Amino acid sequence: MSDKLFHRLTLIGIGLIGSSIARGARLHGIAQTIVISDASPKALTRAEELALGDVYEPNPAAAVTGADCVILCAPVGSFAILAEQIAPALAPGAILSDVGSTKQSVIRDVGPFVPAFVHFVPGHPIAGTEFSGPDAGLADLFQGRWCLLTPPPGTDEDSVKKIETLWQTLGALTAKMDAAHHDRVTAIVSHLPHLIAFTICGTADDLADETRQEVLQFAASGFRDFTRIAASDPVMWRDIFTNNKDALLEMFSRFSEDAQAMARAVRWGDTDYIEDKINRSRKIRQSLIDIKQA
Amino acid sequence: MSDKLFHRLTLIGIGLIGSSIARGARLHGIAQTIVISDASPKALTRAEELALGDVYEPNPAAAVTGADCVILCAPVGSFAILAEQIAPALAPGAILSDVGSTKQSVIRDVGPFVPAFVHFVPGHPIAGTEFSGPDAGLADLFQGRWCLLTPPPGTDEDSVKKIETLWQTLGALTAKMDAAHHDRVTAIVSHLPHLIAFTICGTADDLADETRQEVLQFAASGFRDFTRIAASDPVMWRDIFTNNKDALLEMFSRFSEDAQAMARAVRWGDTDYIEDKINRSRKIRQSLIDIKQA
Repeated sequence: MSDKLFHRLTLIGIGLIGSSIARGARLHGIAQTIVISDASPKALTRAEELALGDVYEPNPAAAVTGADCVILCAPVGSFAILAEQIAPALAPGAILSDVGSTKQSVIRDVGPFVPAFVHFVPGHPIAGTEFSGPDAGLADLFQGRWCLLTPPPGTDEDSVKKIETLWQTLGALTAKMDAAHHDRVTAIVSHLPHLIAFTICGTADDLADETRQEVLQFAASGFRDFTRIAASDPVMWRDIFTNNKDALLEMFSRFSEDAQAMARAVRWGDTDYIEDKINRSRKIRQSLIDIKQA
Repeated sequence: MSDKLFHRLTLIGIGLIGSSIARGARLHGIAQTIVISDASPKALTRAEELALGDVYEPNPAAAVTGADCVILCAPVGSFAILAEQIAPALAPGAILSDVGSTKQSVIRDVGPFVPAFVHFVPGHPIAGTEFSGPDAGLADLFQGRWCLLTPPPGTDEDSVKKIETLWQTLGALTAKMDAAHHDRVTAIVSHLPHLIAFTICGTADDLADETRQEVLQFAASGFRDFTRIAASDPVMWRDIFTNNKDALLEMFSRFSEDAQAMARAVRWGDTDYIEDKINRSRKIRQSLIDIKQA
């Protein structure tokens, strides 16, 4: 036996997050063998060219065979099928985890397929860039970022600890919370901002041709920041939106009411209201700076 | 006579933009004398401590006396009163310009006070950071950024050229356009994104205490970018919103329809619609990169 955290670590999906885990796992000696699988032959070939792992296996069931830790790093919409495919091949005592941004849907989709002798520890590292694919990964992507774990009640404590150790070794801070609560928090801090950013880019694109050219030409800092968010992976975000529908729609509804109220204040010249709202958002910004997340 | 562009350049308002002009004007030798005025005694004292100009004058009428170029760099909501105060003191042949983000309102508020012998050249540099005040200015803030000029028909061509030269010397690109058109373009690229950013920060702030702490703690990249936009100056943005009301409300209305359609697609699982919208916003992002504004 080696002194490494895992004997055989299998990553299913080698995009931004998967390839960042692979790079970090290598750098920090987290696993003796890193096995990489991806539904895209192109991504898998690229992962091999980049030498991100030790074994490259297109078949997910074959990829998890003999692994003591398996992490699903594919878009969450593919998790139900993936879970069904790999379940019969999972080793007794293995830990099954994931990095999906929606945790209730992952527990709903993956949970029923997990054998009794496998420990299921759902996780979500809150980190990313606007780039995607095997080339986009960074060994220090998770440095100083949070990774939220949502193990269902009764999950094997040792397995939870091992996943915490994995993320802490990659530089992340870890916290445990209820999956439903996770989904509400991420809906407001991440999913809704992305929905809004995707939308406003489309709104601009729909303007008359001449104006659109100028929108691009004169894009001010406000719009530039929005397009940076909006450059993220379409399939990943489509899956996040539809798999965190309830929390996302609730937060969207709250936002819409607030935006309508702001628009009404603009229409009627209610300057006190506008200033008060701007001042409050500055305070949130200051709080973020104080706790070093900005 | 010196060979400098201006003999006496007066900046009224020494915040982020005014102090960036002062620094750039000094660096590039744009004016023989730089006169600084500000309604805030604290800002004016600070400008003097930073040696941003040559003369510091709290009275705006006294500040413009003898100047061959005056640039209003205060929040646009103060322009009507400022214009009335300085009009009697403006020198024959002087150029009066500004940096306000809303151009129809500036022409409406300032235009009637401008003496026939003064050349009024409204301008808007599309540049900024989330910081404000005399300390926030940067000599190269305008480098590679656009400055839009909206001179009313019949404006003296030589005066327009001098203002173009001023901005080009500061490193900016210049373009001329109709004020109404300007207001629509900036409404979508800048004003609406700020309104949305201020709003979503408030929406988050309204969540229950426990969740709000976690909103701050786990703020993902999406939300962080929004709070950066939302950290901008409250009075400046209050004035921009109310002074570009019509264009802003039109763009908000378009955005709201699009956001509702996106929320509906999420609710009903219309994944094709969602993916299509995300792909379109990625294309806008790519266009911005292609023309080097991102």
